[in-house]
Amino acid sequence: MTITVIGTGLIGGSLAIDLRETGFGSRFIGVDSSEQNALDALKNGIVDEIMTLENAAEQSDLIILSIPVDAARKNLAKILDLAPPKTVVTDMGSTKNGICSENRSHPKRSAFVASHPIAGTEFSGPKAAIRRLFAGKKTIICEKELSSDFALTRVEEMFKALEMDIIYMQPDTHDMHLAFVSHISHISSFALGKTVLNIEKDEKSIFDIAGSGFSSTVRLAKSSPETWLPIFMQNSENISFALNNYIEQLQKFKACIDLGEADKLKQMMSEANEIGRIIDVK
Amino acid sequence: MTITVIGTGLIGGSLAIDLRETGFGSRFIGVDSSEQNALDALKNGIVDEIMTLENAAEQSDLIILSIPVDAARKNLAKILDLAPPKTVVTDMGSTKNGICSENRSHPKRSAFVASHPIAGTEFSGPKAAIRRLFAGKKTIICEKELSSDFALTRVEEMFKALEMDIIYMQPDTHDMHLAFVSHISHISSFALGKTVLNIEKDEKSIFDIAGSGFSSTVRLAKSSPETWLPIFMQNSENISFALNNYIEQLQKFKACIDLGEADKLKQMMSEANEIGRIIDVK
Repeated sequence: MTITVIGTGLIGGSLAIDLRETGFGSRFIGVDSSEQNALDALKNGIVDEIMTLENAAEQSDLIILSIPVDAARKNLAKILDLAPPKTVVTDMGSTKNGICSENRSHPKRSAFVASHPIAGTEFSGPKAAIRRLFAGKKTIICEKELSSDFALTRVEEMFKALEMDIIYMQPDTHDMHLAFVSHISHISSFALGKTVLNIEKDEKSIFDIAGSGFSSTVRLAKSSPETWLPIFMQNSENISFALNNYIEQLQKFKACIDLGEADKLKQMMSEANEIGRIIDVK
Repeated sequence: MTITVIGTGLIGGSLAIDLRETGFGSRFIGVDSSEQNALDALKNGIVDEIMTLENAAEQSDLIILSIPVDAARKNLAKILDLAPPKTVVTDMGSTKNGICSENRSHPKRSAFVASHPIAGTEFSGPKAAIRRLFAGKKTIICEKELSSDFALTRVEEMFKALEMDIIYMQPDTHDMHLAFVSHISHISSFALGKTVLNIEKDEKSIFDIAGSGFSSTVRLAKSSPETWLPIFMQNSENISFALNNYIEQLQKFKACIDLGEADKLKQMMSEANEIGRIIDVK
């Protein structure tokens, strides 16, 4: 199978590595607006050739869109127009409402499978691509009823080759859930990073004593603005709602600390401990 | 050397394991208000004997206080009273202002070294004790000028045996810095955990799709309220100040998202990316 990866970064690159290794794809074409990324992907053997979108589309059995969500949303219609009849198109974006609603009435909508593998790191670009990034993790397919059986099966087979568990969901549910279990985690980290960097201006040596707990909570603040800005903008309503809830919780913690309400604070901490039930089984 | 560990949990237990293995201590006595913890520590070979504080103190060359910061602060004077002339006392607490200021005029203040090794996990109790928890990490000694050379040297030697880098700091600077690089990380996690657990009441399957980013940011929400509640209460002013800054940053992120101010949001994210400079070298 010939697979085109549009966007040869962390996600596209890691996909190509695994899909080649499992034999799911035999020939990999890279399309990238960044010449440097394209060269890096070629040099590292992630893709076999670099082409324009037009040339790549007509030769591909499967086209994987792994570019920022705003670019994916903007370009999907054009890619569907270019794709030959038996070519399947899928995306890997972390927001699904926009791309789905805008293309719902595209004449070739059935060739498209709206996907989102829940995998990543805080790094980006083809040099960040790693083996088995996806294995054992969850992936989401949205609006599967709008994809043809042929297209759906091809993308499901791809995720199975990657050893992912597939969950089916509607785009609005997806975007709401992701706001809570992914997007506000990123904002929480970005904001924490900014907070401590600001204080550092007065307290030069503040990071001498930062430990592993700090590293863990600010790790996502290293994430690429190119990837995450469009996610925040496209899922703004859900994220705003989630952030409101989060800020409210922080204010409750702060009020207890300010007022010396130890019992109430302890109660909230014990309730939060329950998160172990969720993250320990992952 | 005979070492008494008051509090045989994660910190005290891990200390005893390493100090035995390095030969720094030869006999370890455990003192614990929890009978279960004491038994676990004995059974796992972390300590050789369990004693009352009174019996342990008179036989010890070094007494290590590794109990919650409120209990340490409350009991230090009594422990200093009980300690024989050549016995050194140190604590491991994550707040230093309280314990230092309350004991500054104790007649045996010079036998005490106020310490804080920057090491831990989200787990607690003797069963969570692990080898080499401290190696390669930073530790802080406060108000070293109030400790005798004899006491200071003994505690410095202990930290060197643990392969820790020692930083000297005044208690108020310590507490302010820790509020930013540790304590608000914990509150940020606790509050994020609570936020998502609250939403789960309506959205049962929300955690099906939580990924590694979420796990990383909420990991500290599993931390023990017994350890962390007293830290929050004892460092309330600094934490409140840090939380104010953090909530303000979150509100700035939220405002950009609500108002669609992409350029400003991107700028803030790029600035937060600079955190990589700090956490990548750790």
